Amino acid sequence: MPTAALGWGNHAPDKPLEPIRFERRDLRADDVAIRITYAGICHSDLHHCRGDWGEVPYPAIPGHEIVGEVTAVGPEVTRVQVGQTVAVGTIVDSCLQCRECTDGWEQFCLEGSTYTYGGRDKQDGSVTQGGYSDHIVTREHFVFEVPDGLDPSRTAPLLCAGITSWSPLRQYREHVGPGKQVAVAGIGGLGHLGVKFAAALGAEVTAITTSEKKAEEARALGAAHVLVSSDRAAMKEARNRFDFILDTIPVAHDVQPYLGLLRRAGRMVIVGAIAPLPPIHGGLLVSNNRAIGGSGVGGVPETVEMLDFCAEHQLYPEVEMIRMDEVNHAWERMEKGDVRYRFVIDMSTLERPA
Amino acid sequence: MPTAALGWGNHAPDKPLEPIRFERRDLRADDVAIRITYAGICHSDLHHCRGDWGEVPYPAIPGHEIVGEVTAVGPEVTRVQVGQTVAVGTIVDSCLQCRECTDGWEQFCLEGSTYTYGGRDKQDGSVTQGGYSDHIVTREHFVFEVPDGLDPSRTAPLLCAGITSWSPLRQYREHVGPGKQVAVAGIGGLGHLGVKFAAALGAEVTAITTSEKKAEEARALGAAHVLVSSDRAAMKEARNRFDFILDTIPVAHDVQPYLGLLRRAGRMVIVGAIAPLPPIHGGLLVSNNRAIGGSGVGGVPETVEMLDFCAEHQLYPEVEMIRMDEVNHAWERMEKGDVRYRFVIDMSTLERPA
Repeated sequence: MPTAALGWGNHAPDKPLEPIRFERRDLRADDVAIRITYAGICHSDLHHCRGDWGEVPYPAIPGHEIVGEVTAVGPEVTRVQVGQTVAVGTIVDSCLQCRECTDGWEQFCLEGSTYTYGGRDKQDGSVTQGGYSDHIVTREHFVFEVPDGLDPSRTAPLLCAGITSWSPLRQYREHVGPGKQVAVAGIGGLGHLGVKFAAALGAEVTAITTSEKKAEEARALGAAHVLVSSDRAAMKEARNRFDFILDTIPVAHDVQPYLGLLRRAGRMVIVGAIAPLPPIHGGLLVSNNRAIGGSGVGGVPETVEMLDFCAEHQLYPEVEMIRMDEVNHAWERMEKGDVRYRFVIDMSTLERPA
Repeated sequence: MPTAALGWGNHAPDKPLEPIRFERRDLRADDVAIRITYAGICHSDLHHCRGDWGEVPYPAIPGHEIVGEVTAVGPEVTRVQVGQTVAVGTIVDSCLQCRECTDGWEQFCLEGSTYTYGGRDKQDGSVTQGGYSDHIVTREHFVFEVPDGLDPSRTAPLLCAGITSWSPLRQYREHVGPGKQVAVAGIGGLGHLGVKFAAALGAEVTAITTSEKKAEEARALGAAHVLVSSDRAAMKEARNRFDFILDTIPVAHDVQPYLGLLRRAGRMVIVGAIAPLPPIHGGLLVSNNRAIGGSGVGGVPETVEMLDFCAEHQLYPEVEMIRMDEVNHAWERMEKGDVRYRFVIDMSTLERPA
């Protein structure tokens, strides 16, 4: 029997979020039902609900940084148990058969992965709905155990902001670690975790920011140095310095000033600028054998690795906890960059409307 | 005492090459004098002499694919001996002290490396002159021993076209080798060697060409498959296929159709398009965790490795041998792409003008 669910979503691109009643499917054999306790707010949530990325099957209930407690499991579920604290991230299904899935890169499933919200369920074609809701029913493979010792109230942002920053640092591990110079450009939801991760992995970290005001904050996050991108002298001085640059800037931008900062065989990875990038001069790549790549979230094994790492290092996102009914205001603040550094909704504040 | 030299060069951007008398410096302690027997023709030679890349200190005698015989050595020369067959490539000096030089990446010397022609000698400030000449005097560190069994008449193009194609295949060795799908885009002077190298390194090689006519030739070079870039159906079919793409196309071009061919964690490297590249959509990089890089020639250790590899595998460029006085005609043909695949000047045909 499908279960009655309550979430916050919108009904059209120009509408604010409001309480919406909907249904979650009955448990399939390999499904897990989760009472959601915390939901992180990602900038993608806003883009999706506003239709910035294409047509949306409204109502749209966003949220792909989910933490909660298992309330029921299907008969084929073997790993997680009722009562356990678990998490769900940006995807909830993939074929699990193709070479990418079997190698643990489910996000690049050759058959297409299913997004946590706004996706189409592979079995019944229904639209998936996200974590700004009281519960979720989803496939065990994409349910992560929150390790002992990891504070659930600060875990949710790891499931998107966290893994998106973590994965490139691990893919390019020979460029990141003790003795390596790592820069993080853009010190927001993703970038502040990039700084923490890279420092915890042993690299000497430089935060690159447009704002002198963020310098002190960046140092508090673990940056050994701060480079203000508008300071031409400092940028020139930093040429040929970095082994790796994690570029979390979430809009199209000229990457050339950053490429010039890479030393020989240096690598730069964008995770936010999913847009046409202004022209790059080939000479900037040929010189010093540089490369620029991209990275998209992370697969299941990398996510497990990250959660374990965070538990071990007690490494957390900086979180501002809000009530469910503050979500529209939080989105407004997020649009202005007024968040240090990630909003999390305390889902115990989700009140049933009369 | 400086020695009288004879070469072919030009006196102005719009002038053809003609015989020019000039001087080579007296041997310094670590210098080697080489009687040049073969000089390869590189497209850079033409760009340089025409002033396409900035102001040129005329007269300009090009040539940076040089093979010859040692005729004299300075007192501190220890490695090469009079009578030995040797080669010189694109650079003739660097500081040999900085981290790049000491790591064997002399082409990226932090103090600046000295180009074989059109460069400024670090000691006396004189303009360096290239290999379209009867002899050269140059620093031992940048003189390569031609290994036993390597045919000197087919060796010259390895010193620029060869190393430029070889280096990226070695830098990205985890993406190139047995079991890997490697594509080479642009089947010319560099690309035809890229096909041969990648095949000899054990990869399954696809030649990507604009021209159906080159398909048979590409197979003869060692390509298992040929992909015609204008064939939209074939390009679509090849999406997510390649671990590595070596892009030797020598002009600015849209790299996006090629990026889409990369499988997860695939890498593409440009070596020719030293120009602003049309915009790349960040989503093409983020999807599949792809990256695009560049690569510039190669350092001394990689060049030695390549020469040894070629001797062992009897791997050679396809060469069309010409007389010195055919050089202007050869440049015209090169501009039209009418060369299979590299011109080499037989320097024994250099006649002293009356």
